[in-house]
Amino acid sequence: MGKVICVGLGPGDPDLMSVKADRLIRSARHVAYFRKAGLTGQARQIVNGMIAEGVAEYPMEYPVTTEIHFSDPEYNRLLSEFYEDWAKRLGDLARDETVVVLCEGDPFFYGSFMHLHSRLQGRAEVEVVPGITGMSGCWTATGMPITWGDDVLTVAMATLPEDELAKRARDTDALVIMKIGRNLPKLRRALAEAGRLDAAWIVERGTMQGQRVQRLTEAEEAPYFSIVVVHGQGRRP
Amino acid sequence: MGKVICVGLGPGDPDLMSVKADRLIRSARHVAYFRKAGLTGQARQIVNGMIAEGVAEYPMEYPVTTEIHFSDPEYNRLLSEFYEDWAKRLGDLARDETVVVLCEGDPFFYGSFMHLHSRLQGRAEVEVVPGITGMSGCWTATGMPITWGDDVLTVAMATLPEDELAKRARDTDALVIMKIGRNLPKLRRALAEAGRLDAAWIVERGTMQGQRVQRLTEAEEAPYFSIVVVHGQGRRP
Repeated sequence: MGKVICVGLGPGDPDLMSVKADRLIRSARHVAYFRKAGLTGQARQIVNGMIAEGVAEYPMEYPVTTEIHFSDPEYNRLLSEFYEDWAKRLGDLARDETVVVLCEGDPFFYGSFMHLHSRLQGRAEVEVVPGITGMSGCWTATGMPITWGDDVLTVAMATLPEDELAKRARDTDALVIMKIGRNLPKLRRALAEAGRLDAAWIVERGTMQGQRVQRLTEAEEAPYFSIVVVHGQGRRP
Repeated sequence: MGKVICVGLGPGDPDLMSVKADRLIRSARHVAYFRKAGLTGQARQIVNGMIAEGVAEYPMEYPVTTEIHFSDPEYNRLLSEFYEDWAKRLGDLARDETVVVLCEGDPFFYGSFMHLHSRLQGRAEVEVVPGITGMSGCWTATGMPITWGDDVLTVAMATLPEDELAKRARDTDALVIMKIGRNLPKLRRALAEAGRLDAAWIVERGTMQGQRVQRLTEAEEAPYFSIVVVHGQGRRP
């Protein structure tokens, strides 16, 4: 009797994955991971050199890209079919084998695995190993604490409407914004409106080769997986 | 020339500390950690069996407990003196030696080390190694994802006033509340007022021996370091 183990890889530096993740990945016989069609995939890249020879790999290639807007019903249908298909395949495999699923960051925090997790219930035993979030890697890269004392931290996606982003930025002590990419100009306007733009930092490729930490006012573009951070300034003795 | 390296230990299970943290701790010659006077301390406990013989240990014992309210100026004076003193001692030591400071969770996320970090600037080279947060350990323990799609996550301390807690609980998708302890009755009222009480979970000793996951409505008491979680219900294909 096998199971499906989803392993959080942490923010990108392989040295920052957990001891447990490291051990599970090195001893895995079946390894699955999400990726965009045609690319190696970030998760697979992080574990380069850790996967033994002869291991069966299952690249789960997204059937759509961010080019289709998520409000499109066709997007939902395609994704749902994709997750359903892989839940079935991994569930079948887990009858006899243990399958390690690689997930960047922390699997239960805005991860893709959760869409398999819900579909695997009743089909296979599932275990989730938490990981260091991408945002932890990014705020550590800024060299400044994110929250002090009783600070409130808000985490929001840059895909939200501009006025909603401005409201969130105004109404919190510390702020983390993810999924930037083409939302950068909108996010910048929202932060300016909330009076938080000058205090905002953007981190690209946090903890990885090519890591870049800049003030948001100076950033000209932002990959989708960069993270914006506004540090809390709470109570300190 | 040495340095001060603050190492995030993660949520409590030693298997969940990073490969880097594990290596740094096992090879350290000088190890410092915070603790309440007279206790072993949670951080020190997590690394039991990992510290080599003959290593110099520096327990940094808080001069106050939560018995004194933080609005008391005496509390601030005592704590400030304490951090100042240890920043000086670790800074002096780091002239020749590397000192590893143990911190539960992720050091820059509501940690005590940040009070040394700010005081060590210009005195010693400082490095911070991120860790899995206690809250990641706790939401993973509930077996349910914390955030989906464009969910907004709010992290707040139960030390906030009741109406502020209720407002935060109403105005977010996913919610994490820390520093529970004696604030439990107030937090329960605030969540009830916001209509979120029935969806709230409390996790004690997340990822550690004696871990306990309950609905908040069923919890009779809560240690200070337990964490309350209300999961987001965002978009999912």
